[in-house]
Amino acid sequence: MAQYFVGIDFGGTNTKLGLFDSDINLLKRSSIPTDIDLECDALVEAMGNAVKELVSDAEISMDDVKAVGLASPGPAQYKKGIIEAATNLPKLVNVPMRDMLSDAVGKPVVFENDANVACWGEFAIGAAKDAEDMVFFTLGTGIGGGIVNRGKLLEGSGDNAAELGHLIIYPGGRKCNCGQRGCVEAYASATNTAKRAAEAVEDGFPSTLKEVLDKNGEITCKDVFEHSANGDPLARETTEETARALAVLCVNMLHTTEPKQIVFAGGMIAAGDALLSRIKHYFNESIWHLRKETVEICFATLGEDAGIVGAAALAKFRTQ
Amino acid sequence: MAQYFVGIDFGGTNTKLGLFDSDINLLKRSSIPTDIDLECDALVEAMGNAVKELVSDAEISMDDVKAVGLASPGPAQYKKGIIEAATNLPKLVNVPMRDMLSDAVGKPVVFENDANVACWGEFAIGAAKDAEDMVFFTLGTGIGGGIVNRGKLLEGSGDNAAELGHLIIYPGGRKCNCGQRGCVEAYASATNTAKRAAEAVEDGFPSTLKEVLDKNGEITCKDVFEHSANGDPLARETTEETARALAVLCVNMLHTTEPKQIVFAGGMIAAGDALLSRIKHYFNESIWHLRKETVEICFATLGEDAGIVGAAALAKFRTQ
Repeated sequence: MAQYFVGIDFGGTNTKLGLFDSDINLLKRSSIPTDIDLECDALVEAMGNAVKELVSDAEISMDDVKAVGLASPGPAQYKKGIIEAATNLPKLVNVPMRDMLSDAVGKPVVFENDANVACWGEFAIGAAKDAEDMVFFTLGTGIGGGIVNRGKLLEGSGDNAAELGHLIIYPGGRKCNCGQRGCVEAYASATNTAKRAAEAVEDGFPSTLKEVLDKNGEITCKDVFEHSANGDPLARETTEETARALAVLCVNMLHTTEPKQIVFAGGMIAAGDALLSRIKHYFNESIWHLRKETVEICFATLGEDAGIVGAAALAKFRTQ
Repeated sequence: MAQYFVGIDFGGTNTKLGLFDSDINLLKRSSIPTDIDLECDALVEAMGNAVKELVSDAEISMDDVKAVGLASPGPAQYKKGIIEAATNLPKLVNVPMRDMLSDAVGKPVVFENDANVACWGEFAIGAAKDAEDMVFFTLGTGIGGGIVNRGKLLEGSGDNAAELGHLIIYPGGRKCNCGQRGCVEAYASATNTAKRAAEAVEDGFPSTLKEVLDKNGEITCKDVFEHSANGDPLARETTEETARALAVLCVNMLHTTEPKQIVFAGGMIAAGDALLSRIKHYFNESIWHLRKETVEICFATLGEDAGIVGAAALAKFRTQ
């Protein structure tokens, strides 16, 4: 009986693959560079070959693979399996990626948004494996989101549910790349945390970050958390503002889908408890007094593997 | 075959009942005063008798009634069918209302939050009857919410999903009755729209509403919309602020559960297009440019019947 699953995390730089057993234990992994200059046919062929190679390297027959999960950046029509115009993949315009890959490997392919897939990974075997209801945020260039409600990935009327980075929490506030103002992403993503600090330094606020900016020509989110830990007031206020914004996001999600667990992922969680404890602090300060809330706010546990794990786990769930 | 349903809208002043056929057509209605001084046993007995009387008045046998839906104010443990401590019903503390009523009428009873029930009514046969995904707001003393996702009422880990009036849109802003600051309810409920106007008048802002306040000792939401229509700048700015807050709420819900339709209900929608057109205006101004959104923002159509209709429709859905 076919009992193995392949998870693919399709990114603009690398495509990571993992082979999993039916309990979603990782058996073998591989990675190929994503050649963004390839036409879709060639790109899918390379991906299909990487799947077959991974499986054969593990001395497993393709007959024993039940399904493949593919995590893809957006925007895409996930329900239809079509990549519309992914920002970092210029040649892939309106391509039926899911069905093409399915033809190439001769297996059902489950195709889903990369943030949703990482969310599902944390739900299936990561930080939220005991919760039936969770919300997931990934803090990177932007803020991606995913929602598991009553044991299922929440989907809306189209392909754009859980775009949680674009919840407006400061109407009329900072301009977001999406065109809105005051999105939580415009304040609290890793990129915008760094950007707010850089803007303040450029505006002349005294900070030990000035030296970093002068030397490197930029400030990273890591710099901000490091200087905050070292007591720089500007860096500290910047990280507090990030924690406050993320806490409001947690309050708002609690009042919407009422998760049992809220999981943060992405590069920024490297900041550790300096970030997590402050999010919890502001959450407790902000939340209503009508009842005692027991939602657990925590960090993701799957790290870089969330994409391949989630893709395999979702492939299993949706082909059951 | 049992094919009739009874919907009960249990309120602090009156309890309204409706008898419905299997297509949720209203056949007969009745109403009894809610005697808040009664102990739970007596109150449930009166309610049970009202159900039987309604059914017998319609010359239908109780044998032909399949289930009863009960819309109840909160807070309650809806999944367990227990009223914990409803604000206007002081004698009902930790009472197993659902099972007691079920025993009294000899039928399954479906027990749900009143805002969720009204939401379900609009979904089943009201403003959103063609949508699989909708969000519902009721604008009254507070702002109640309900979410239908993929054809089902969204439930969370407990009994408090879709408390949408308590989404924070102005962190650190106006104090809400719930203990939070900056809830949308603290700005845009009917009560708080009126209150903001009254505060501004008391603060000395010139307005034709001053005469109303002096004469009546209060300003109602209706007054605010009337004076806004007559061109009073303070009243107009107050209603604009309400529309802006509700538009942000719409943007945030679109990015969360991605509804096809957003339905506003409650006393305030009597303001008509003066309110609806402004919510749409601010929504269009605020929403991202990443893709064209087609969500329909509209008003509820069931009016005062939403409770009994929704309760009957939900009783049918959950006993299918």
